[in-house]
Amino acid sequence: MEQHLNTPVEPLSILPGRPVHDLVTSMGGTSFQARNLARGVEIWSNMLKDELTIFLGLAGAMIPAGMRQVMVYLIENRLIDCLVSTGANLFHDLHESLGKFHWKGSASSDDRELANSKIYRIYDVLASEKEFDDSEQFATNFFNGLEQDQTYTTREFFFLLGKELSRQGTKEGILTAAAKANLPIYCPALGDSVFGTALAAARVKDGNRIHIDIVKDVVEVIQIASAGPSAVIFIGGGTPKNFIQQAELCGYIFDKELKGHKYAIQITTDSPHWGGLSGCTFDEARSWGKIAPDAAAVTINCDATIALPIMVSAISEASAEAISNRKRPAFLLGKDITIL
Amino acid sequence: MEQHLNTPVEPLSILPGRPVHDLVTSMGGTSFQARNLARGVEIWSNMLKDELTIFLGLAGAMIPAGMRQVMVYLIENRLIDCLVSTGANLFHDLHESLGKFHWKGSASSDDRELANSKIYRIYDVLASEKEFDDSEQFATNFFNGLEQDQTYTTREFFFLLGKELSRQGTKEGILTAAAKANLPIYCPALGDSVFGTALAAARVKDGNRIHIDIVKDVVEVIQIASAGPSAVIFIGGGTPKNFIQQAELCGYIFDKELKGHKYAIQITTDSPHWGGLSGCTFDEARSWGKIAPDAAAVTINCDATIALPIMVSAISEASAEAISNRKRPAFLLGKDITIL
Amino acid sequence: MEQHLNTPVEPLSILPGRPVHDLVTSMGGTSFQARNLARGVEIWSNMLKDELTIFLGLAGAMIPAGMRQVMVYLIENRLIDCLVSTGANLFHDLHESLGKFHWKGSASSDDRELANSKIYRIYDVLASEKEFDDSEQFATNFFNGLEQDQTYTTREFFFLLGKELSRQGTKEGILTAAAKANLPIYCPALGDSVFGTALAAARVKDGNRIHIDIVKDVVEVIQIASAGPSAVIFIGGGTPKNFIQQAELCGYIFDKELKGHKYAIQITTDSPHWGGLSGCTFDEARSWGKIAPDAAAVTINCDATIALPIMVSAISEASAEAISNRKRPAFLLGKDITIL
Amino acid sequence: MEQHLNTPVEPLSILPGRPVHDLVTSMGGTSFQARNLARGVEIWSNMLKDELTIFLGLAGAMIPAGMRQVMVYLIENRLIDCLVSTGANLFHDLHESLGKFHWKGSASSDDRELANSKIYRIYDVLASEKEFDDSEQFATNFFNGLEQDQTYTTREFFFLLGKELSRQGTKEGILTAAAKANLPIYCPALGDSVFGTALAAARVKDGNRIHIDIVKDVVEVIQIASAGPSAVIFIGGGTPKNFIQQAELCGYIFDKELKGHKYAIQITTDSPHWGGLSGCTFDEARSWGKIAPDAAAVTINCDATIALPIMVSAISEASAEAISNRKRPAFLLGKDITIL
Repeated sequence: MEQHLNTPVEPLSILPGRPVHDLVTSMGGTSFQARNLARGVEIWSNMLKDELTIFLGLAGAMIPAGMRQVMVYLIENRLIDCLVSTGANLFHDLHESLGKFHWKGSASSDDRELANSKIYRIYDVLASEKEFDDSEQFATNFFNGLEQDQTYTTREFFFLLGKELSRQGTKEGILTAAAKANLPIYCPALGDSVFGTALAAARVKDGNRIHIDIVKDVVEVIQIASAGPSAVIFIGGGTPKNFIQQAELCGYIFDKELKGHKYAIQITTDSPHWGGLSGCTFDEARSWGKIAPDAAAVTINCDATIALPIMVSAISEASAEAISNRKRPAFLLGKDITIL
Repeated sequence: MEQHLNTPVEPLSILPGRPVHDLVTSMGGTSFQARNLARGVEIWSNMLKDELTIFLGLAGAMIPAGMRQVMVYLIENRLIDCLVSTGANLFHDLHESLGKFHWKGSASSDDRELANSKIYRIYDVLASEKEFDDSEQFATNFFNGLEQDQTYTTREFFFLLGKELSRQGTKEGILTAAAKANLPIYCPALGDSVFGTALAAARVKDGNRIHIDIVKDVVEVIQIASAGPSAVIFIGGGTPKNFIQQAELCGYIFDKELKGHKYAIQITTDSPHWGGLSGCTFDEARSWGKIAPDAAAVTINCDATIALPIMVSAISEASAEAISNRKRPAFLLGKDITIL
Repeated sequence: MEQHLNTPVEPLSILPGRPVHDLVTSMGGTSFQARNLARGVEIWSNMLKDELTIFLGLAGAMIPAGMRQVMVYLIENRLIDCLVSTGANLFHDLHESLGKFHWKGSASSDDRELANSKIYRIYDVLASEKEFDDSEQFATNFFNGLEQDQTYTTREFFFLLGKELSRQGTKEGILTAAAKANLPIYCPALGDSVFGTALAAARVKDGNRIHIDIVKDVVEVIQIASAGPSAVIFIGGGTPKNFIQQAELCGYIFDKELKGHKYAIQITTDSPHWGGLSGCTFDEARSWGKIAPDAAAVTINCDATIALPIMVSAISEASAEAISNRKRPAFLLGKDITIL
Repeated sequence: MEQHLNTPVEPLSILPGRPVHDLVTSMGGTSFQARNLARGVEIWSNMLKDELTIFLGLAGAMIPAGMRQVMVYLIENRLIDCLVSTGANLFHDLHESLGKFHWKGSASSDDRELANSKIYRIYDVLASEKEFDDSEQFATNFFNGLEQDQTYTTREFFFLLGKELSRQGTKEGILTAAAKANLPIYCPALGDSVFGTALAAARVKDGNRIHIDIVKDVVEVIQIASAGPSAVIFIGGGTPKNFIQQAELCGYIFDKELKGHKYAIQITTDSPHWGGLSGCTFDEARSWGKIAPDAAAVTINCDATIALPIMVSAISEASAEAISNRKRPAFLLGKDITIL
């Protein structure tokens, strides 16, 4: 019995004016998802002290949810090294970088009335159809301005788009910050987003002849995973989670034997018992070798709009030194990626 | 369109060392559950400035989860006026007040091995069977020490138990703090807890002859709800949520026409689409008149171990003045309750 | 590897006109929750062939959801032996037994408009306030017609109410069928329901002097659990689940050492990771000894309105023989319960 | 009030030996998710009687879950016309078509031990690493056997693969049945699957030079959606859901003004309150014009392993005539798609 009952739960105290990182530390003494949240901060902090590449998988409408600046912070301060995202998050980022807004609305709106007013709804967020069309047109024009009869990885494409947005945009976003930081962004389902429909329109209407080389995307992510130890942070599941996980199984392509990610954090609202990959446990990932047998891993069952700002706020203060001293893997991004 | 698109989502910034209440204010500019969390803090703050009785319904294993001190803070600083709880939370509170612990464990323990070691598991928390038995025996003894051939409301019972624990216990808990503050506690399913099995043991083994007057419990809660405007905070659902809600429908017993609770907050991990009361919306509650037609109401879909400490930490600082200036409804608790 | 990979998943075939029990058998060859559903049918069928007492815990608004006849079937054919229920289900059962209806509505109704029309909403079900008031008045009158200055267990109360409804009602329901079958019903949170508010009204308005003996409720359920082997079926969580589970820990009151329920099925929409009892696994229950170390147990993550009719339909055909040959524990219900 | 209370909930009866379609009809008289399930069957049946194109979006590990034959039934009997799927489902389908198995396992396996035994786990399903490698090699070989220096849509690729599997495989699957039926399959995130890693290996190791034309995929789906009225069925969310939805917004590419899908069904375990697209309501989709203002739409909150076999079993019997009489949109699939 003694081997089990050795660390008491420590009831959390309410202290007015308490800084976020201090509250999170206290959560480490509690249970359930608060303990997991604190564990997530601890694991992320340990990642920052280690020498490795940190992948972040981003799913869910995080930009309409007000998380653009959090993502910019992660990129600028290099709390992550490689981003894999849904296309929607990157389109919404482009939209805000161009100085346009997402708007506060209500989840119980009259959607037929919104449709008549040409307003799109994303849960409790609204967007103007006209403004979204303008942003889509920006993307179409950008595609048409690229050198034709070429293939582009999504990484190349978003690097170039980030550069362009740095010139034309008015706000710092994921794409602009990543382009400045030479931080690679991959989008495994580019076609499944406004970028996809913009490309389709450019192809059909304007005779655009560029191609997206999705095979090279896969190759590059495996290359990055094969270059050294790695860690993963998943905000939601979807294609980003699997795309990062599968890379760890493919070291053989570069004659490497990979041992699974060393650290793993996921913030999810999905559950394992539905059997899907988005909600699966890191234990399941261990059976595949995606995660190392002894990886430090935690699942935080919480809406990312709550968990992510708290975790990053806590780390920004408590791991300030680790952040500034961190050995960051470097990538030379041009037509080809080189890991320095 | 203009009537819809008037308040932009404001991306949240990461500021190292930021106090909790400031981060929560920023969450108010975002979306999804972070916005709801901030709205919950705003509504609770408005409750504190109003003149009314604040009910709190408490379900879920919040004490093993490390929330005892948060509850004590709420009681001592009178952020709530009347508590309705499951029996388990109050038993676990008694356990910790007596100086015993809940212990940190793992959700993926070997439960057969734990059973052999006489250890109970509550998700990622462990408890000693022996220590729980001791606490149950404390309850049994307490029941046997009460004047026999009497009826007790759960409110009377917990008031007396709180007094006793103030003498014998070593830690401040819900029961001791509430007894000192004359804050009434009701437990609509007392039999469904260790208090119930302790009473059963006392009846069968020791010939205990006390009775719990559950009808008077119902009467008193209706009386409190009928005394003036009210607000509700639900941590989880279960019997506490319904017990508080139903009171608002029964003003007729005291010839009052009640208008529904004026403010309503719920922190829940349940969903409306299963049709149960625990996950139902406050809109549904409006159809019944449990909630006033124009009540300020918010549902926060989040584990309470995360949401509650953040909300209370934020309020403790941002509403410090409202807390100290608050007009608190007073109850004279003895054999009969009197609302002053 | 061979010890793991020995039973292939068998893809389910679509066969027009297939009977329910046959489809469920096929689900046994699949995975995820369909496999659990089939396992639930298998375990329930095994319960029926064994000699034991089957407890059913009922939470969630199952009667407005159209499950009254399913419950009647379970009682009349004795697929269960003892029912522990929320008060709401029993009140809704009374309502329908009296010939009144729950009505089909929409989950996206205008609740303020419903309130004005004096209509209550339960997700996608509606009820008339006036008709509910009439049913509550029926309950109040029934309480006033009982012999005064007496204590009643909830089991006695619902037995007498079932008898009365058999005389006055027009539809067969849980209460009438259970009274005829001498099947005991317990309600651990009677006060938390219309029965509670009806009792409160009777007490205040009419001077009603009856008492509900919740301690004897606990004693009796422990007595039934102590009489021999037992099995549990939980539809939802809440007080019924815990009330049944805790009994298995209290054999000592009758100098019995209980070994935990032999079979366990739960249909739930809750998840373990929130830490509460409603969503907890049967593995967790094993650590307490509520469930036997080698108990056959399954959790089915599904809305009970889907899972329950399918399971019971399947059992009604596939286990017809076991049902008619079953050795049923008998209770002699009067002022005192006797287990024959 | 009368306008609200006009259709009573009809309690469902248990009838031994009842066929599935008859039970589902009874569920239509109940509430909560059972009513939604019955409504889904009704809407799907109405789709079959209408003249339109039925899209099905498939996410979640449905093949390891034993749903391959259900999918084959849908394709062969043309209850759907165009499939959009995750890559994983199609790889698992290839695996089974080649005569290999997924195996029954337990969700609480020891994953480190499984890793040592070279066994992969998908919730309660197991797979042999060696056999998965063989299937991946089959895919790599197939890629290497394709004409090089060409681009392929995922539709072309899966059509050719289906043809090849019809020759080499031993079981009928999604890919073989679709190839025979000229039913187009799209995979918006091909790179995010074993097909992606097989392509990466072929590129790096074997100098494979084929390209996947994801832009043409988007163009074609818009083309199909623009050809006439359409209906959607979503099993899970993810890329398939959005990929189908977005097509309805892009009719302008072919100078068509689309009015939104006419019918919509989704089976999901996600919830709207997390703000993501996978869990969003069809009302939200209406604001975008993805769904027609008056579209018949229903969300069924249920594990698809339960809901899908029941729904398809019910339709196979109750809509047998509509199925055989259905006017099916025809596609001429070769190097280019033509809708007849």
